Amino acid sequence: MNLYFLGTGAGLPAKHRNVSSIALELLEERGSIWLFDCGEATQHRILYTNIKPAKIEKIFITHLHGDHIYGLPGLLGTRSFHGAESPLVIYGPPGIKAFVEQTLKLSFTHLKYPLITKEIFDDETVFEDDQFIVKVKKLEHGIPSFGYRIIEKDLPGTLLADRLKEIGVKPGPIYKKLKNGETVQIADGRVLNGKDFLGPVKKGRIVSILGDTRYCKQSVGLSKDADVLVHEATFAKDEELLAYNYFHSTTVQAAQIALEANAKTLWLTHISSRYQGEEDCQMLLAEARAVFPEANLAHDFLCVPIPKK
Amino acid sequence: MNLYFLGTGAGLPAKHRNVSSIALELLEERGSIWLFDCGEATQHRILYTNIKPAKIEKIFITHLHGDHIYGLPGLLGTRSFHGAESPLVIYGPPGIKAFVEQTLKLSFTHLKYPLITKEIFDDETVFEDDQFIVKVKKLEHGIPSFGYRIIEKDLPGTLLADRLKEIGVKPGPIYKKLKNGETVQIADGRVLNGKDFLGPVKKGRIVSILGDTRYCKQSVGLSKDADVLVHEATFAKDEELLAYNYFHSTTVQAAQIALEANAKTLWLTHISSRYQGEEDCQMLLAEARAVFPEANLAHDFLCVPIPKK
Repeated sequence: MNLYFLGTGAGLPAKHRNVSSIALELLEERGSIWLFDCGEATQHRILYTNIKPAKIEKIFITHLHGDHIYGLPGLLGTRSFHGAESPLVIYGPPGIKAFVEQTLKLSFTHLKYPLITKEIFDDETVFEDDQFIVKVKKLEHGIPSFGYRIIEKDLPGTLLADRLKEIGVKPGPIYKKLKNGETVQIADGRVLNGKDFLGPVKKGRIVSILGDTRYCKQSVGLSKDADVLVHEATFAKDEELLAYNYFHSTTVQAAQIALEANAKTLWLTHISSRYQGEEDCQMLLAEARAVFPEANLAHDFLCVPIPKK
Repeated sequence: MNLYFLGTGAGLPAKHRNVSSIALELLEERGSIWLFDCGEATQHRILYTNIKPAKIEKIFITHLHGDHIYGLPGLLGTRSFHGAESPLVIYGPPGIKAFVEQTLKLSFTHLKYPLITKEIFDDETVFEDDQFIVKVKKLEHGIPSFGYRIIEKDLPGTLLADRLKEIGVKPGPIYKKLKNGETVQIADGRVLNGKDFLGPVKKGRIVSILGDTRYCKQSVGLSKDADVLVHEATFAKDEELLAYNYFHSTTVQAAQIALEANAKTLWLTHISSRYQGEEDCQMLLAEARAVFPEANLAHDFLCVPIPKK
């Protein structure tokens, strides 16, 4: 599991920070990639990575501002051109369906794969399977903007093969059943409960990726105990009024959310183009770390591994 | 007057050729820039040029395929963010108005300048003022695709000041009237006709920029005696059937149009990403030059000056 920052700027593209997009690489977990937002030229950024558009399984849109969605139609078309046949699901606020359908229709773009668009109206669970749950909450951004909490389900412990061998149970198909926690009767009549032969449960990871927002309490709920929190920091700490007026956050406000939520690490993104060069970056980082020492500043093409627990 | 190629690839962006866009720089002539097509990430290309989005006065769209229009919403928003207040006019096939209006509306983008969209339905003159005429004809591309013929109006000859001095007319406000071709009575009673004191008329330039198309006769009309013809060459000459089936042209077909139209120079663009590297480029160029020696191959960021006559 890797978090791959494709665009870390705010509002407008700049030479060194493109507009918003983040890839959550789940290649080991499910052979696919989930994208969070898709600003213009996200597919151009992808050209310089190992990401294959055909592997993109889901795209989660936080809100409909242009710097978060204008790259969608192009990426959808390119994914089709690359021969993808697997379905793609797009999640986003009301209007995302019209945006995608209208742009594709008016540009005569015919996709060769099924495209499903799911509009989000309120705090809810937008996706769940046997591996992951994705929950959303509405943030504060003037227009509907959502934060996503991606919860990896706990994995069963490893099978304690040594203990089984000690009591004379040899490896075979029975091991698989025991690993699944099933109760099994073996040849000599003994009944074994799989749960007695499993090590401790492996806790799943939690990744919280929030859309543009003011400092707000919903962000704390979304980020509770997260292993990785991605929060916008459009402005430095001395621009709190500007941040409030434009429905954005400062470095310190992002760090405060991470602290209150007991997140393990924080990645700041959506950095205004007014901040340029190494000195500005160090300043933004220092402001956040003064509040939350595990804060980091994202940059385009940064790949953050999220190790198993 | 310069022709600035911003994107010279076909269909999908590649590392070295972005999707379609060409800027016609008219800074000397009218202090503005006209854009032809606006594929995704055109504004990203512009970041690496001297083009100021606020100077873009008109955008001419040849057709609605995504690789020619997906960069429009972002560029329109950025132009507003840069503080432009002057109107912007977009010309394009039916549907361009809906595309622009829907994308801006759904993304909550409010422009600070007047945006006018003019849809083109058939062969017509889409613009005329005292400097330029822009005419269009419909090409053959499966969907409505237009070619633009930009005609600079002839400029009056220079005032023959030496001849005036010979007959005793000294420099002054009268020179301006004579330069405008007016008839003027001077102090000693003589009546002078400005036209008698002007050098030969300076012919205006003709630039023809064609959208995606098969080889077709309309292209010849659009390109007649053009100083610069920009024609697509998606495929090499041996892919004539492929070009026909996908409503595109080969190098040789583009060169044939230039030859029949008596164009002075030809620039090939919209090159398929199957052709890469110097060797392929030389091959495409050689194919075109075998038919039309003044053929050239465009590449991203190429700036072609179009000198006055």
